Amino acid sequence: MVLSSAGRFDLVVVGTGPGGYVAAIRAAQLGMRVAVIEEDRPGGVCLNWGCIPTKALLSGAALVEDLTRHGETFGITTAGLVLDYGKLIDHSRKTADRLCKGVQGLFKKNQIELIPGRGRLAGPTSVSVNEEALVEGAQILLATGSTEWVPPGIDVDGERVLTSREALESKRVPARLVVIGAGAVGIEFAYVYAMYGAQVTIVEMADQMLPGADPDVAQALQREFRRKNIEVRLGTRFEELKHDGSGVNVTVSQDGTTEELACDQVLAAIGRRALSDDLGLEKAGVQVDAKGFIRVDDTLRSSVATVSAIGDVAGGPLLAHKASEEGIAAVEFLAGIDRPAIDHAAIPACIYCEPQVAWIGMTEAQARETYGDVKVGKFPFTASGKAIAAAHTAGFVKILAEPTYGQIVGAHLVGHGATELLPEIGLALTLEATTAEIIGTTHAHPTLSEALLEATLAAEGRAINF
Amino acid sequence: MVLSSAGRFDLVVVGTGPGGYVAAIRAAQLGMRVAVIEEDRPGGVCLNWGCIPTKALLSGAALVEDLTRHGETFGITTAGLVLDYGKLIDHSRKTADRLCKGVQGLFKKNQIELIPGRGRLAGPTSVSVNEEALVEGAQILLATGSTEWVPPGIDVDGERVLTSREALESKRVPARLVVIGAGAVGIEFAYVYAMYGAQVTIVEMADQMLPGADPDVAQALQREFRRKNIEVRLGTRFEELKHDGSGVNVTVSQDGTTEELACDQVLAAIGRRALSDDLGLEKAGVQVDAKGFIRVDDTLRSSVATVSAIGDVAGGPLLAHKASEEGIAAVEFLAGIDRPAIDHAAIPACIYCEPQVAWIGMTEAQARETYGDVKVGKFPFTASGKAIAAAHTAGFVKILAEPTYGQIVGAHLVGHGATELLPEIGLALTLEATTAEIIGTTHAHPTLSEALLEATLAAEGRAINF
Repeated sequence: MVLSSAGRFDLVVVGTGPGGYVAAIRAAQLGMRVAVIEEDRPGGVCLNWGCIPTKALLSGAALVEDLTRHGETFGITTAGLVLDYGKLIDHSRKTADRLCKGVQGLFKKNQIELIPGRGRLAGPTSVSVNEEALVEGAQILLATGSTEWVPPGIDVDGERVLTSREALESKRVPARLVVIGAGAVGIEFAYVYAMYGAQVTIVEMADQMLPGADPDVAQALQREFRRKNIEVRLGTRFEELKHDGSGVNVTVSQDGTTEELACDQVLAAIGRRALSDDLGLEKAGVQVDAKGFIRVDDTLRSSVATVSAIGDVAGGPLLAHKASEEGIAAVEFLAGIDRPAIDHAAIPACIYCEPQVAWIGMTEAQARETYGDVKVGKFPFTASGKAIAAAHTAGFVKILAEPTYGQIVGAHLVGHGATELLPEIGLALTLEATTAEIIGTTHAHPTLSEALLEATLAAEGRAINF
Repeated sequence: MVLSSAGRFDLVVVGTGPGGYVAAIRAAQLGMRVAVIEEDRPGGVCLNWGCIPTKALLSGAALVEDLTRHGETFGITTAGLVLDYGKLIDHSRKTADRLCKGVQGLFKKNQIELIPGRGRLAGPTSVSVNEEALVEGAQILLATGSTEWVPPGIDVDGERVLTSREALESKRVPARLVVIGAGAVGIEFAYVYAMYGAQVTIVEMADQMLPGADPDVAQALQREFRRKNIEVRLGTRFEELKHDGSGVNVTVSQDGTTEELACDQVLAAIGRRALSDDLGLEKAGVQVDAKGFIRVDDTLRSSVATVSAIGDVAGGPLLAHKASEEGIAAVEFLAGIDRPAIDHAAIPACIYCEPQVAWIGMTEAQARETYGDVKVGKFPFTASGKAIAAAHTAGFVKILAEPTYGQIVGAHLVGHGATELLPEIGLALTLEATTAEIIGTTHAHPTLSEALLEATLAAEGRAINF
């Protein structure tokens, strides 16, 4: 082992996903000498194999649907529509490449040293790289993220059986696709493949799509998916799959009855697990919980004072923006900045199919449990002038407020462009704003964002346009 | 003259645009007996001949551009693309019809009496309808709006020379169109016609598009319009036009040099004037300003205590949402509710071409005049992962904050979806929020709304992704 020629860093970050790279930049801004260690492409799963490349696919899928479903409404007809999914994958990879290069540019601009290789803790203030070099840091930040969790019995071969990782490079649209899991990943891929021509069936063990989401939202999405001829089977358990040269048979069970689903390809989108098992945590004495997530306190420090952890590997909602926020917070805590802890109750969740799904704060059930008689306001996009003009009237906005002061406690949206409407409610949660303050804010007409205003008015029993 | 059979109302509203109809509903919610008088279609210009039907056209135009400019990126190719503008107009009219019926439904639901006919003040508490019936109200609310202002020398015939009113029913796309005026209306129609095949030239007397907008925004839009082959001639004055059977000649002058522009159609989009000149104002003693706008105080009362006025006819920015806000405010003041006056500094402005333009609060010049050394943060959509994935990277977000506390004072946006991003900044203005509070709010990744966060970070010298 040799000591890195660079000597000791103020901060060594392991992993360059949206947690790690953002933390590194913030640390550099605060005057720290920073190294980042990355064994794969800078940018992590989010940028290379997750959030970003899937949004490229979803943008194409939305355009296909707009054209085929609404084109005639707008006087647009096409004699011979050809969909080349391979080109869509090319755009998706180019998008990831561009952003990956962007992250490397940001490292240079901020004088952050990028060390390629596999980082493992070698002690409380040192990280080994490929078990060859040793990088010393006054502080270590673990940001290694998570990876697909595939249950036993599913053999991912990249041809017949894929996870999102393989799907992002696969240029083929199967005739019949079974998606196992109706979480964000399963739903987004189901939508993309369906729009590019696949017959898609989603199998979900829970009794709603998006387990954990407000049931109103989940049901509305399910209705819309059925309209798109995407089959959604809830309360249905994956049992096993067999595949040969001609196709795949997926065995599922519902209420004790088993059934075989014949298809051409299976996408396993069941869940993710923390990438903490080969990180050398035991060498430094860093503790993990029963699921393998690194235990951290409110300041994101692990059980070892010189080791912090952020993002997916530290548990909580496995979301890129949560990782980024934690990255900034962890570094600011290390720098001694007096700042609040991350409010995990105000982390938005977004699903980017059409209609989009977006929420922040409490579900209605959680709000009722906390406050009793909650103020609930709902506004459907069928009553929105902008939505009607755009031929995108699916979905609604639901606003939740606590009963005494009307403080906003949650928002749940299904609809076109819903993911872009959350920040107003995000700021409302940050500032503990009330319905009166949302109502006192002029919303531009005609925008979809007026639905936030109308739902808030409805929560106070004074909706105007519904 | 006969007294209306309904007897005396608590409130008589003249005009059912977004000011009048919203005011009537709010008044009904507050327990008033309300009549509305409307000589045309309920919903006013906004709903029938303005905001709403144009958004239907713009949705089609954006889809055409997405398909023709970005389709191949997403693997979408069309052998024979046919654009039927007549169908687009049909969709636009259907959209207006649906909302117009919606407003009538809202009147019924709220037990508001709709009286068809031309309303004119007959005295401080009475309105004549078609000079036949007289409707008495303890309070009168004037919400008659505005109409196109066409300068002398422009003879609108609906064939060769149109205003937006005629354009909304015209099913023909001219080969060559000259648009006089680069305000919101001119820009939106220029974009629609260009996408459906017209060669468009915009003539604007001022030295920027969107006079009054932040110059950065105007310049960015102009650049994008040139990329779309829409010619924009600034500092160019309309002199006269002549038309015969074969076409139109528009004479314009620039720096003292005149030139003739040959085209097939002209759209006059120069400005609007208050509909106050045949309202019987003099009978009740209601005063207007030099431009014909009804003078109102902070509670929206005119010079006559029983007569209030809202929306375009009362001046200020001629925007639907400003009219609605004033409608609610006027009625709440009449009901004795203790509420703040309308903050005209926090009224958003939106233009719905692609890229969209949206702003709220002070321009940079206004902020510098007020605060001296302003905090300015800018973030281009070329650095946004969502924008790259969606192939919509034009434009930027600019955030302005006052220097001492970082209080947000304005935002100026050009970009895809920009109009939906304003409400966060709107709420920030309502709550006098600071950059720290925007930064402390988690923005979902990947969304365009992250550009608001990044621009705010940039205003504090700590941008992450740029």
